Amino acid sequence: MFFSVRILGANSAVPNKNRFPTSQCISIGQEKVIIDCGEGSQINLSTYKIKRGKINHILISHMHGDHVYGLPGLLSSLNLGGRTEPLILIGPLGIKEFIEAVLRMTYVNLQFPLEVKELNHSSGKKLIESSSLIDIFAFPLKHRVPTFGYLLTEKRRLNIRSEAIQTYKLDISQIMAVKNGEDIVSQEGKTIPNAELAQWTIPRSYAYCSDTIYDPQLAPYIQGVDLLYHEATYLHELKSKADQHKHSTALEAGQIAKQANVKRLIIGHYSSRYDDLEVLEKEARQAFENTTVVQQGDEFKIE
Amino acid sequence: MFFSVRILGANSAVPNKNRFPTSQCISIGQEKVIIDCGEGSQINLSTYKIKRGKINHILISHMHGDHVYGLPGLLSSLNLGGRTEPLILIGPLGIKEFIEAVLRMTYVNLQFPLEVKELNHSSGKKLIESSSLIDIFAFPLKHRVPTFGYLLTEKRRLNIRSEAIQTYKLDISQIMAVKNGEDIVSQEGKTIPNAELAQWTIPRSYAYCSDTIYDPQLAPYIQGVDLLYHEATYLHELKSKADQHKHSTALEAGQIAKQANVKRLIIGHYSSRYDDLEVLEKEARQAFENTTVVQQGDEFKIE
Repeated sequence: MFFSVRILGANSAVPNKNRFPTSQCISIGQEKVIIDCGEGSQINLSTYKIKRGKINHILISHMHGDHVYGLPGLLSSLNLGGRTEPLILIGPLGIKEFIEAVLRMTYVNLQFPLEVKELNHSSGKKLIESSSLIDIFAFPLKHRVPTFGYLLTEKRRLNIRSEAIQTYKLDISQIMAVKNGEDIVSQEGKTIPNAELAQWTIPRSYAYCSDTIYDPQLAPYIQGVDLLYHEATYLHELKSKADQHKHSTALEAGQIAKQANVKRLIIGHYSSRYDDLEVLEKEARQAFENTTVVQQGDEFKIE
Repeated sequence: MFFSVRILGANSAVPNKNRFPTSQCISIGQEKVIIDCGEGSQINLSTYKIKRGKINHILISHMHGDHVYGLPGLLSSLNLGGRTEPLILIGPLGIKEFIEAVLRMTYVNLQFPLEVKELNHSSGKKLIESSSLIDIFAFPLKHRVPTFGYLLTEKRRLNIRSEAIQTYKLDISQIMAVKNGEDIVSQEGKTIPNAELAQWTIPRSYAYCSDTIYDPQLAPYIQGVDLLYHEATYLHELKSKADQHKHSTALEAGQIAKQANVKRLIIGHYSSRYDDLEVLEKEARQAFENTTVVQQGDEFKIE
């Protein structure tokens, strides 16, 4: 099943030409999840030819403008596009008031059901949403305002062993039964245990941590994920600035990745002061080698 | 004095790659005026290297998202950029509540004075703002919600006749006096009337009409302007759609330009259905030859 992260924007605060503020589109099978929605997110959905109809969840980390100012435009455009399917919007306390106020004041009457779920826990990782393909967890980050990180974990699926179908001459109803975890009885009347016919997939996972200070307490929430996005607003030489604004340095992003033993790290939310983004990547690699600094438009596939 | 209109975005409703929603930056001498502020306006200010510090006025036509969703981001970025100079924001009733609510809910405390002026007249052209260089007038348009057009008129200035300085050996204080409209007394004791020393400039003007139905009553407000921007959402073959959504067709934009006897017409706010924008230009030219369909990034100088 296809599982990828597309970067719609990764600049911090003040955007610039080709450096839009934070937004990502996660594709899992046919489902799409938007994480954060900075100004211009919907424009880059068009730029990268991403079908909007498949977006079923929008997750907002926090209520700073560079993560949320693109949300009214996206919802408004989905509405103009004739959407009727429900959409689930998840974010910190206040997101419901924000989106309702803005849509009302700009004369938008949504023609599709928008379910808004507000998060308000100050510790722990909680399962907040579950579709047929994924589980979505939220956990608090440490920033200047209430902020949440997200963990998307593929659901375990039973994959039939290719040889089993031939060996036991399984028909369609038997294949469905095996996929549902059942044993089957062979033509000779012998019970074949499910484990011999199918095996569980190893669920892949993606974690998103932005914006946040360097916080080793995050590591257990994101332990062993296949792909971790962590903010890296500054180089470590500006550590005092990072502390002041409650952001992380590239080195610290690398340290978290190492502590959590993730497979791959991508970093973003970089300050506009950095024209050359490779310096951030180089610094993070001092702590965690398998690091990539993201560029707008990049797609990271989780194999 | 430099007088130009830069197109930051000109698409209607749902934006697309390189087709941002409506926003323009008008430069008059050292002053800059933003008219409308659709999503991504601040990004294109960067794209076209426009200095934000000189923006002293922002004029909003109406409270539809494609004209206003870029405003919180622009104000927020001006704030992050350390602005301390006052800024004047003008728009229809409701704009004050909108911007105050959004800034509050996204934790923005402006460090510069923002003066918000709300418009609420249903007829006539009113002078709403006056700087040392320009007068700004607002007049109601006819759209689905309260909407205003704007007219920017250069102030008349006294230009000293180049030969007068030499002929009468004018010193600095005399030059200033002449520029203030005063007569001077020559070295021979003769009074030289101001009209002999200086002449009034012919004020240039720019009018902005979006969004609106075709409305011949607009013509007197924009009579004889050097440059008119008028919306042209559809081709005339979709006249019924234009009527339904209270927009204009390209042909109608040309007709208004002709009725108002303007010098040049530019059209925009085109529907995303038109990949080829020349068809709109061609249609408007049936009524008014000197028409150009705008593209994002275009700059129109008023000579």
